[in-house]
Amino acid sequence: MSDSSALDRFYAVIPAGGIGSRLWPLSRADAPKFLHDLTGTGKTLLRGTWDRLAPVSGAQRIMVVTGRAHRAAVEAQLPALADHNVVLESEPRESTAAIGLAAAILEHREPGVIIGSFAADHVISDTRGFTRSVLEAVAAADAGYIATIGITPTEPAIGFGYIHCGGKLDIPGAPGAFAVDSFVEKPSYEVAQDYLADGGYLWNGGMFISRADVLLAQLGENEPELLEGLQELAASWDTSRRGATVDRVWPRLRKIAIDYSVAEPAAKAGRLAVVPGDFDWDDVGDFAAIGKLHSGGRSNNLAILGENPRVLSDASTGVVVSHSKRLISLVGVEDIVVVDTPDALLVTTTQNAQRVKSVVDALKLSGRGDVL
Amino acid sequence: MSDSSALDRFYAVIPAGGIGSRLWPLSRADAPKFLHDLTGTGKTLLRGTWDRLAPVSGAQRIMVVTGRAHRAAVEAQLPALADHNVVLESEPRESTAAIGLAAAILEHREPGVIIGSFAADHVISDTRGFTRSVLEAVAAADAGYIATIGITPTEPAIGFGYIHCGGKLDIPGAPGAFAVDSFVEKPSYEVAQDYLADGGYLWNGGMFISRADVLLAQLGENEPELLEGLQELAASWDTSRRGATVDRVWPRLRKIAIDYSVAEPAAKAGRLAVVPGDFDWDDVGDFAAIGKLHSGGRSNNLAILGENPRVLSDASTGVVVSHSKRLISLVGVEDIVVVDTPDALLVTTTQNAQRVKSVVDALKLSGRGDVL
Repeated sequence: MSDSSALDRFYAVIPAGGIGSRLWPLSRADAPKFLHDLTGTGKTLLRGTWDRLAPVSGAQRIMVVTGRAHRAAVEAQLPALADHNVVLESEPRESTAAIGLAAAILEHREPGVIIGSFAADHVISDTRGFTRSVLEAVAAADAGYIATIGITPTEPAIGFGYIHCGGKLDIPGAPGAFAVDSFVEKPSYEVAQDYLADGGYLWNGGMFISRADVLLAQLGENEPELLEGLQELAASWDTSRRGATVDRVWPRLRKIAIDYSVAEPAAKAGRLAVVPGDFDWDDVGDFAAIGKLHSGGRSNNLAILGENPRVLSDASTGVVVSHSKRLISLVGVEDIVVVDTPDALLVTTTQNAQRVKSVVDALKLSGRGDVL
Repeated sequence: MSDSSALDRFYAVIPAGGIGSRLWPLSRADAPKFLHDLTGTGKTLLRGTWDRLAPVSGAQRIMVVTGRAHRAAVEAQLPALADHNVVLESEPRESTAAIGLAAAILEHREPGVIIGSFAADHVISDTRGFTRSVLEAVAAADAGYIATIGITPTEPAIGFGYIHCGGKLDIPGAPGAFAVDSFVEKPSYEVAQDYLADGGYLWNGGMFISRADVLLAQLGENEPELLEGLQELAASWDTSRRGATVDRVWPRLRKIAIDYSVAEPAAKAGRLAVVPGDFDWDDVGDFAAIGKLHSGGRSNNLAILGENPRVLSDASTGVVVSHSKRLISLVGVEDIVVVDTPDALLVTTTQNAQRVKSVVDALKLSGRGDVL
């Protein structure tokens, strides 16, 4: 367990950015994935994330980085979110800029702060298991590591990236921590089966916990200009110069995922620790994942999401998302995905759920941004 | 060929009644199948039927039997339809009542008339082939037979009833006519293959051509009360007593298909002749049939129907009917049927197209008549 002084320095950061293209036409530019209730609990994913983190960090120590367009929706979801903890992006510039800016602001305000970044749109129901792993990761961060939490695989998933564990580390308060050997992209089914059998591979849940100064120093090794921009923004953030600095600096920051700018270089340098997490986790990346979340492990199940859905099903399985008032009838369709919204309808199968992004790309190309 | 005097006595009757439940939610009580353009020609099926018959009978000699609710729509489709040739049903009472009433009215007006009844919602594109068969059937009718037209099968269809041909008949003007041995219900695929190989089986297209007095006499043998009611209606039809007679008699007429009340008994009695038709024919009984109509014989095809449909398809086949303004996206769904209307959506497969009726039945039972 991490000592209390490290936990006292912990700040949670929630980057709430991605639209969730594979969940179109449910997720849209103006209604991104994190603002939807995909679990049937009545809570948006963002609110679920907050509710997991607030008991660990305290509600006053959660920062949300989101787009200007989502400010009202985010604040409505999170009434306890402090004004100074809302960081608005004038335009999306990828995860390094979002998390790095939060790190720089927090380090500027509170040197020595430990930050943990947690996606706004993942699903975890085992809050106790999650908290245990976060506490270990905070201890590893306090020891100078950039820590990540890797989820113990329960099946040969092909929709997630993997973390290949290296040697066991000996960190006080983080007895489960390993060094990270490497990050691995989404594998084929066969490779995923090997990973599962091997036991040394964990799902990459995209959670990073480290001292802010350590994170920024790591970033500076590969992306010095990006770091410089973030430092400049942070220095002006709590001053009257913020607006002008944002206008000048933010649009020129390099767009790069934090996995490439920080995590992989840190792994190569032996500075990345992974804490295995035994809790359930899903990034709910596509409609097949939604179906699985709602099936309770049963196959031959039809998951129905939406407010007051009117669905008539005859010998059909899969997922129906009803975001219109229409009656939806399914007859003899298996593993089907039907997403019904007022202006757009998607019909696919759970097997093809990952390909939904191609529709979004095609719509962009054909100038049909009105439904995106 | 029939002699001209027989053709001069010919009157075409179009019963325009059935909703087409297997085409729900496209076909509805207030927008039945015959009022839709299912061929992509821009014509409703009713108008297509009229356009096939008018050159044979003359536009002044076509009678349409339809529900009161459809009067305006029918007259809009058929501007040349004479007022006295519109027979309105106060409520649906099946095909014997509809065709029998037309026969009785026409026989009352014009003794010796030959009537031919042709469904309002079938598709035939080979008008010349159709006309040739009708002329032969008129000749057979003139010779005292109740004639039907059986379509030469082109595949082992399981969605149609079949006519088993008996011996060759020797009727002047109807060189192709056979006696009818029996009617056969929709067969299994294996049986349908046997029928196709046998060569002595034709598809039952539901077309009946006979002298009106012969038809009514045949009806009277099995259904004397029904005949009596129809005669009473016919006698009052062109008088001021029509309304009162309809109110009193129509609701009490037995509901029975003309296949059972007339055709099968006539076949048993050796009074039924069948003229083989070599033209294309389809009763467009379900969405799979619509798909086939539009595929032009190609498989791996996606048929798209509707006004200004907006469909984005990726590796998908089947049928899309777009009766809303929504964007419809299909990703990797094969043999799919998607019918999109403002208040109801159907998703099924071409293989399950016949089962759509079960949805309609379920909706009736659950009191959701609003979408039927």
